[in-house]
Amino acid sequence: MRISARNRLKGKIVEVKKGQTTAHVRIDVNGIIVTAAITNDAVDELGLKVGQEAYAVIKASDVMVGLD
Amino acid sequence: MRISARNRLKGKIVEVKKGQTTAHVRIDVNGIIVTAAITNDAVDELGLKVGQEAYAVIKASDVMVGLD
Amino acid sequence: MRISARNRLKGKIVEVKKGQTTAHVRIDVNGIIVTAAITNDAVDELGLKVGQEAYAVIKASDVMVGLD
Amino acid sequence: MRISARNRLKGKIVEVKKGQTTAHVRIDVNGIIVTAAITNDAVDELGLKVGQEAYAVIKASDVMVGLD
Amino acid sequence: MRISARNRLKGKIVEVKKGQTTAHVRIDVNGIIVTAAITNDAVDELGLKVGQEAYAVIKASDVMVGLD
Amino acid sequence: MRISARNRLKGKIVEVKKGQTTAHVRIDVNGIIVTAAITNDAVDELGLKVGQEAYAVIKASDVMVGLD
Repeated sequence: MRISARNRLKGKIVEVKKGQTTAHVRIDVNGIIVTAAITNDAVDELGLKVGQEAYAVIKASDVMVGLD
Repeated sequence: MRISARNRLKGKIVEVKKGQTTAHVRIDVNGIIVTAAITNDAVDELGLKVGQEAYAVIKASDVMVGLD
Repeated sequence: MRISARNRLKGKIVEVKKGQTTAHVRIDVNGIIVTAAITNDAVDELGLKVGQEAYAVIKASDVMVGLD
Repeated sequence: MRISARNRLKGKIVEVKKGQTTAHVRIDVNGIIVTAAITNDAVDELGLKVGQEAYAVIKASDVMVGLD
Repeated sequence: MRISARNRLKGKIVEVKKGQTTAHVRIDVNGIIVTAAITNDAVDELGLKVGQEAYAVIKASDVMVGLD
Repeated sequence: MRISARNRLKGKIVEVKKGQTTAHVRIDVNGIIVTAAITNDAVDELGLKVGQEAYAVIKASDVMVGLD
């Protein structure tokens, strides 16, 4: 599927941690760790595992801007 | 302010485009362009300009995972 | 791309309305109209047009439940 | 309450699964299953149960568009 | 409609500003101004006007925590 | 960090409840309780505790408007 979300950051999964309903998946994008909170069901359906290539996908309206 | 959002990607602003109410700000994070859709008011209050160092800030629950 | 978002509702695009930065795309999903607010850039990149088959894609954490 | 969210999909609850803090509620909307991740507290306050008529409510800015 | 969103802050509308597709509505909640970015369509459907009593409604998963 | 999010509601933390991956933090803002669902990791990193002064931070595009 091609998706309208503007941000698709390619990396490698470095951690998959499931809770009771919500899982945390960490993706290493060029040395930056991006954390995704998704459903356990999504982890199972996609078969997400440490070491896989994956994208962190983020809709532009969910990105804020910060300054030091 | 220290913020709970898990993802803070440091980069440099490469584009600021204002609409009537919503602006698009593009940040170059190590060669990856991240697009943020924020209010014009936020652009004005923070004084966002091309060339500034800035962070793309994203709550973990707004990050999805994609596979090729 | 396969995506972790739990909700992918298949339908047909019935309206594409661009603003200055934000567009509204309406998809008819079995007679229910679903409205998406996405960037103009996404509309252009995907070449979204009335009559196309398309999916409304929604992360589970963005869905609320209402009762009459 | 009348709400600004553009998308209110009427259906019937087919599953309520509570975790420690986050619950997953599945609503059958004309044969399409929509998954909502909401707080356990919301499930309790609204008394959500399998078989109830309910709406999946989604803000337009949280809807993406996908193409095959 | 009763809604699962945990946060419903009662106040009075103090500004309604429409763009081409996206409007900004400001609600005074006990002296704190809360800004909502919603569709123009929602403003029209609800007939939102300065001076009306209204709620700012926010899903718990969209709230972050900040410290000074 | 200065952040683009339009809504920063100052209050005091009155409850921190951790699940397996997702925590609920409640902040009393002038007598209104605001609930945030954030990661356990964020609670730990910020050292969030009952009694602390804290902000509920919300992006404008995540705020809806409701009418009675």
